[in-house]
Amino acid sequence: MQPSARHGTHYVAEDSDLFWGLRAMTTDPLVVFTPSGKRGRFPAGTPVLTAARQLGVDLDSVCGGRGICSKCQITPSYGEFPKHGVTVEQDALSEWNAVEERYDQKRGLKEGRRLGCQAKIMHDVVIDVPPESQVHRQVVRKAATARVIEMDPATRLYFVEVDEPDMHEPTGDLERLARALKSEWGVEAIRADTTLLSKLQKTLRKGKFRVTVALHKSHKDDAARVLEIWPDLHEGGLYGLAIDLGSTTIAAHLTDLVTGDVKASAGVMNPQIRFGEDLMSRVSYSMMNPGGDVEMTRAVREALDALAVDVAEEAGIDPQLIVETVFVCNPVMHHLLLGIDPVELGQAPFALATSDSISMDARELDLVSINPRARTYFLPCIAGHVGADCAAVALSEAPDKSDDLALIVDVGTNAEILLGDRSRVLACSSPTGPAFEGAQISSGQRAAPGAIEAIRIDVETREPRFRVIGCDKWSDEEGFWEETAQTGITGICGSGIIEAVAELRLAGLMDESGLIGSAERTGTARCVPEGRTHAYLIHDATADSGPRITVTQGDVRAIQLAKSALYAGARLLMDARNVDKVDRVVLAGAFGAHISPLHAMVLGMIPDVPLDKVTSAGNAAGTGARIALCNIAARTEIERTVREITKVETAIEPKFQEHFVAANAIPHKTAPFPELRKVVTLPEVSFNAGSQGGTVGRRRRRRG
Amino acid sequence: MQPSARHGTHYVAEDSDLFWGLRAMTTDPLVVFTPSGKRGRFPAGTPVLTAARQLGVDLDSVCGGRGICSKCQITPSYGEFPKHGVTVEQDALSEWNAVEERYDQKRGLKEGRRLGCQAKIMHDVVIDVPPESQVHRQVVRKAATARVIEMDPATRLYFVEVDEPDMHEPTGDLERLARALKSEWGVEAIRADTTLLSKLQKTLRKGKFRVTVALHKSHKDDAARVLEIWPDLHEGGLYGLAIDLGSTTIAAHLTDLVTGDVKASAGVMNPQIRFGEDLMSRVSYSMMNPGGDVEMTRAVREALDALAVDVAEEAGIDPQLIVETVFVCNPVMHHLLLGIDPVELGQAPFALATSDSISMDARELDLVSINPRARTYFLPCIAGHVGADCAAVALSEAPDKSDDLALIVDVGTNAEILLGDRSRVLACSSPTGPAFEGAQISSGQRAAPGAIEAIRIDVETREPRFRVIGCDKWSDEEGFWEETAQTGITGICGSGIIEAVAELRLAGLMDESGLIGSAERTGTARCVPEGRTHAYLIHDATADSGPRITVTQGDVRAIQLAKSALYAGARLLMDARNVDKVDRVVLAGAFGAHISPLHAMVLGMIPDVPLDKVTSAGNAAGTGARIALCNIAARTEIERTVREITKVETAIEPKFQEHFVAANAIPHKTAPFPELRKVVTLPEVSFNAGSQGGTVGRRRRRRG
Repeated sequence: MQPSARHGTHYVAEDSDLFWGLRAMTTDPLVVFTPSGKRGRFPAGTPVLTAARQLGVDLDSVCGGRGICSKCQITPSYGEFPKHGVTVEQDALSEWNAVEERYDQKRGLKEGRRLGCQAKIMHDVVIDVPPESQVHRQVVRKAATARVIEMDPATRLYFVEVDEPDMHEPTGDLERLARALKSEWGVEAIRADTTLLSKLQKTLRKGKFRVTVALHKSHKDDAARVLEIWPDLHEGGLYGLAIDLGSTTIAAHLTDLVTGDVKASAGVMNPQIRFGEDLMSRVSYSMMNPGGDVEMTRAVREALDALAVDVAEEAGIDPQLIVETVFVCNPVMHHLLLGIDPVELGQAPFALATSDSISMDARELDLVSINPRARTYFLPCIAGHVGADCAAVALSEAPDKSDDLALIVDVGTNAEILLGDRSRVLACSSPTGPAFEGAQISSGQRAAPGAIEAIRIDVETREPRFRVIGCDKWSDEEGFWEETAQTGITGICGSGIIEAVAELRLAGLMDESGLIGSAERTGTARCVPEGRTHAYLIHDATADSGPRITVTQGDVRAIQLAKSALYAGARLLMDARNVDKVDRVVLAGAFGAHISPLHAMVLGMIPDVPLDKVTSAGNAAGTGARIALCNIAARTEIERTVREITKVETAIEPKFQEHFVAANAIPHKTAPFPELRKVVTLPEVSFNAGSQGGTVGRRRRRRG
Repeated sequence: MQPSARHGTHYVAEDSDLFWGLRAMTTDPLVVFTPSGKRGRFPAGTPVLTAARQLGVDLDSVCGGRGICSKCQITPSYGEFPKHGVTVEQDALSEWNAVEERYDQKRGLKEGRRLGCQAKIMHDVVIDVPPESQVHRQVVRKAATARVIEMDPATRLYFVEVDEPDMHEPTGDLERLARALKSEWGVEAIRADTTLLSKLQKTLRKGKFRVTVALHKSHKDDAARVLEIWPDLHEGGLYGLAIDLGSTTIAAHLTDLVTGDVKASAGVMNPQIRFGEDLMSRVSYSMMNPGGDVEMTRAVREALDALAVDVAEEAGIDPQLIVETVFVCNPVMHHLLLGIDPVELGQAPFALATSDSISMDARELDLVSINPRARTYFLPCIAGHVGADCAAVALSEAPDKSDDLALIVDVGTNAEILLGDRSRVLACSSPTGPAFEGAQISSGQRAAPGAIEAIRIDVETREPRFRVIGCDKWSDEEGFWEETAQTGITGICGSGIIEAVAELRLAGLMDESGLIGSAERTGTARCVPEGRTHAYLIHDATADSGPRITVTQGDVRAIQLAKSALYAGARLLMDARNVDKVDRVVLAGAFGAHISPLHAMVLGMIPDVPLDKVTSAGNAAGTGARIALCNIAARTEIERTVREITKVETAIEPKFQEHFVAANAIPHKTAPFPELRKVVTLPEVSFNAGSQGGTVGRRRRRRG
C-alpha cells in the first residue's frame, strides 16, 4: 500500500476525489456538521474544534481552543441519520472532561452541550453548531424586506498567550504579541498607537501574558490595528455605533459586534439647527460668517460625543467598549462633521472634497468619550447632493441585486432617489423642501404626540375624521377624545398633510390644479375663506383656547412643490432608463414608514404601481450603517456599487424642470386603484376663479 | 522591411540587442547623458526630460515637464566626443524657446543651461545633468569616515494639474487629486486626514487646480499620505528634523529634504534632568511617583516642540514646513517620549514595550508647532539597554558592511558597543556610569569653557601642563594665562580626566592597581595626601579664591570602574566572535570626538589596535538619524540590520563579571605604541601600602 494523504494529520474532505479513493482503506471516524452539512474524516482523537476549522465550519472560538472562552459550544446528536448515512453511538465523542466539568460548574453549560475544543471525535458523529456558536451568525432584520446581515465585523476579539520576555532574545512586548497573533490566529501584521503602547506592558503582566485583544482589520489596509487589550479573557463584550446623522436629528444604534444585536438606540436633535433649519441655510451661515463652519463642526461633534455616552448608559455598558463607529449622512453633514467647509456644496458644480469612503480614528472627530482608539468609517458619497446616507440605503435595499426595477425613495428635506435593478442603478437627489416633514405648513408640526398623522374625508358628508400620534383610535371612535385629552390635537405632521391634501382631492373639494373650492362650490362649511383663497377646517378648538387646524391653499401649494420635485426626480431617472413605469416602489426613512402609499399615489408623489408593490423600508440608511458596522465585506461591496451607480444631477437637467412643471397637477386618478372605485362617480371639478392659485412654474431654491 | 520596435514612441536603449539590430535602419539622434553614461536613440523632437526618464537618468522635475519648476536644468555639450563616438553640432537641441526665455528673464538661467522639458533632441547630443538637477543627489558627510547619503527622502514634492469638478461625473476633489498623482507621477494610492481635507478645496481653487503636494511614502504602507498642499508651484522648501534625544541633552538638526543640507542645529538640556540625572533615577522616579512617567513625558515633549520652533527660527523657515521628524534615543528616552512607563526597563528581563521601528503622526507626540500632519519615525531598538541611538550608530558606521572587524563604541552614561564585519554584528551595552562625562569626579565638570580637556605630565619633572576648553594654547605656552583669565580654570571634563589618569600611570606616579604614590615615593610635591590616600595636584588657584584641581584616588577608582565596564563589554563581544583582537576601533559620540585614543588605550578602555586604526565618528547617532531622514531605503536597511544583530546582555553574562574584574588594572603597556618608547625605561612601580585601594570587585549598579 502506498503512503496516502491520510497519513499525518491532514483531513480528507468528503467531496474530494481523494476521499472516495481513500474511503476503502480508512476507518477514521466521519464527522458531519449541521446545519452546514460539511463533512470529513479525521483521525480518532481530533478535537471537534480542530475538525470544524479544517472543514471551514463556522464555529466560533476566542481563546483558540484553551477551554476558557466557551464560544465553541456544540451539540452532538445521537442515533440513526439515514440522510447522512451515519449511526452515532453514545461514545462518539470523548468523555466529558475536567475542563468541561469546571466550566459547567462555574458558568453552566446547557444540557447536551459540549465544548468543541475539549470533546474529541472518537467515532462517526453528527455535530450541531448552535447559532450562538457561529462566528458569522446571521441577524435577520425585523423589517418588511427582511435582509440578512452576516456577522463579520471589522473588529473582533482574540485571546492569545504571549511569550514572556527573554533577555537572551530581546524583542518588544508588542512584537511578541504580534508573533502570538500570527501563530495562533494567522494575523499577518499588527500596528498599535502610542496610547495602546502605554498600557501594553502592564496589561500583559496583569494577565500573566494571557490577554484578549480587540483587533480591527480594515478592508483596505493590511496591518490590523490593536484597538484594545485586556488581561486574560475579556468577557465584557465589544460594541459599535451605527450613526445616522441627519440635518434635523441624529440617531445612534449601539450594536453588539459579536451578536449584531442593537443594545440601545438614542437620538438627539442636531444642534446645528441653531445655525439654520435646512442644509442650505447652514451652507449660507458658513459663507456669511468666517469660522462658521468650525462652529458647526464643533457643535455636531460635541452632540455626537454626548450621544455616544447616552446610548452606552442606556445599554448599561462602558463607553470605552465602543470601538467602532459608522456614519451615514448627507454630503453637507458629512463635510461639516469632517471639518470641511461645505461652501462648495452650495454652488455648482457641487464639488465634494472627498467622495470615496473614508476611515479614521474616532478621536479625529473629537469623539473622546468612547474608546480612544475607536475607528470610524464613512460610507462613500454618491454625488454632491447624494450622500453617504443614500449609499447606505443602496446597501440596505440593494437595488443592484433586484430582479425587478425598483424605485427607492428616501424622503427627507432632500429626497434621495435610486432606480435600478441588476443591470444598472441610477441615483439623484431632488430638492423637496421641508413640507413633507410638516415644516412650512400653516398647522404643521413635527411627528409628536398630538399631531394628526392620518385623515379621511367622507365623500358624502365632506366631514373629516382623523387619528393623532399617541392614540390608536380614529376621532369618530368611542373614547378618542378622552384618550387625547392630555396631549390635545396640536397640529398636522408630514404624513397627515399628505393624506389631507389627497383626501381633499378624492372628496372633490379640490380641483386638479390644487385649488380648494369655496363653501358655496363644495357645499360644506368646512371650506372657509382664508384671504383670497380657501382653507379646509379640520379641527377647531379655539373655544377651549386650543388651536384651529386647517389645510390652507398655501399648504397645498407647498405640498405640490415638494411632490412635484420628488416625482420629477424619479421621472428623470426613468427617462435615463428609458422606462415609463417601475415594478415596485420602496419608501425609506422615518417618513416613508408612516406615509400611506395610496395617498402618495393619489397625490402623484410617486409613479403608479399596484399598491402591494409599495413597501416601506423603515430607516434604511440606519440599517445600511448597521450592515457596514457588522460586515466588513459590505464596505467593499457598497464602495463598488457606488462607483458603478449612474449619477444624475437634477440641477442641470433641463428635463427636470419640464417634469417638475408637469407634475404640479393632482389628476383624479382612480383606474389603478380599485380601493378608490367608490369615488369614480364624482364629477370632475374645477375651482379656478381667475388669477389666484395656478400652477407653480418657478424652480424652488435647492434646500437641504 | 518589417515593422520594428522603433515605430511609435518607444526608445531603444543602446545596450540592447535590439538596438544594434536596428541601428542600421534608424537615423534617430543619439543622446548620451553624463555623468551616468546612459544613452539611447529617440525620435527627433523628443524632449530631453522625456528621454532622461525613459533611460532612467536621474533628472529632477517637480512640475512634471511644464516648464515652471526649473528643476530639470541640463547643459548640452558641443564638439567631438570620441569617447562617446558622437559629434555634437550647435543645432543638436531645438532652439531656445519662449518658456525658457520667460524663465531666464524672471529667475535667470546659468550660462549654457537649458530646461530639459523644453529643449528637444534634434541631432546626436551629449547632455550633462548638473548635480543640482539630480533627484538622488549625494550629500557627503563632513566627518572623518566620509559616508555618502543618497537623497531619497520619504517625503517629496509633486506638482500636479487636477481635473476640475464636473457635475456629470461627480467625484471628490481628493479623488481627482489622486487621479492626477497617479497619471502624472505613478503614485498608486493616497490618503489624507481631516485636517488636510479641510484645506483641500480652497487650496485647489486658489491654485486654479494646479497645486504642489508634499507626499509621504512610508517604506511599510502602500498608500502615500498627503502631508501638505500649496496652491500652484511651492517653492518654499520642505524640511525634516533629525533629533538625537539624549538623557542629558537633546540635539535637533533641521535638514533640507531636497538638498540634504543641515540648515540649522540646536540643542537644549533634557528637562527630565529635574526628575533624575541618569536614566535609572528617572525609572526610579516613575516607580516611586504614580504618574511620574506622565510628567516626564510631558516635559520632554514640551521641550521638543519648543526646540523645533527654535531651530526653525534659527534657519529662518516656517515651522509648518517641517514635515518629518526622525528620533534616535536610548530605550528609556524612547519609552518616555512615546508615553510608555519605563519601569520594565529598570529590572530584568529589561523588556521593551516595542522594539521594532515605529512611525506615527508627530502630533501624537504633542509636536504641535510643526506641520500638523508631520510624520515621525523612530529607529528600532536593539535590546532593553541598546536603543535606537545604537541602531543609528550602526546605520551611520555600518559595521555590517565592514571588511575588517570593527569595534564601535558610543560612550555616554551607558556605553553602547557594536562589534562586527560583513559576516556578523554583535551589540551590547555596558554600564560605565557618568565618570567619563566628568560626573562623580572630585574636580569634574561638563565640557564647557574653563574645563581642562587635555593634560600631559612630564616624565622627568612630573609637572603637569594642560589645555582648557576655549583656548588653543597649552598652559606652558605664552599667552595661555592671559587668554584664560576670563573663564578661569574651573575643573576637568571627561577627556581631561581620562588623560590625567593615563598620564599619572605613564609618569610612574600611579601603579598598575591604580594607586597614586605619596610625595616621598614619587618624588614630587604634587602628590599630596588626601585622607588615607593621595591625590595629584594639577592646579591650585586657592590663593586667588579659585579652585584647587586635583585627581584624587576616588577619581581614579571611578575611572577604573567605568573603563573596566567598557572594556568588559567589548571583551564579551570579542569572546562571542571568538577573537582576541579587533582590526579597528571607532569612537562615536561627542565624547569619542574629544578623547585621545592613545590615552584611552593606556588606560585600557579599548582593546589595543595600532593608533591609526582608532577613528572618531563624531555624533554618529545624529548622523544615523539624518540618514534615515534623507533616505527611505536606509530605514528598511537598518530594520533588517537590527534584526540580524546578535544581542548580548551583559547583565546576565557571568563572563562579564570576570572581564570586569580583570580589566580593573592599568597595565604598563608600551609595546604597541612607539610614541611611548620614551617611557619604557621607567621602572615598574607599586604603591600598594596595604589595605587601601585594591581592585574593585563589586558590580556597579547599572546606570543610564
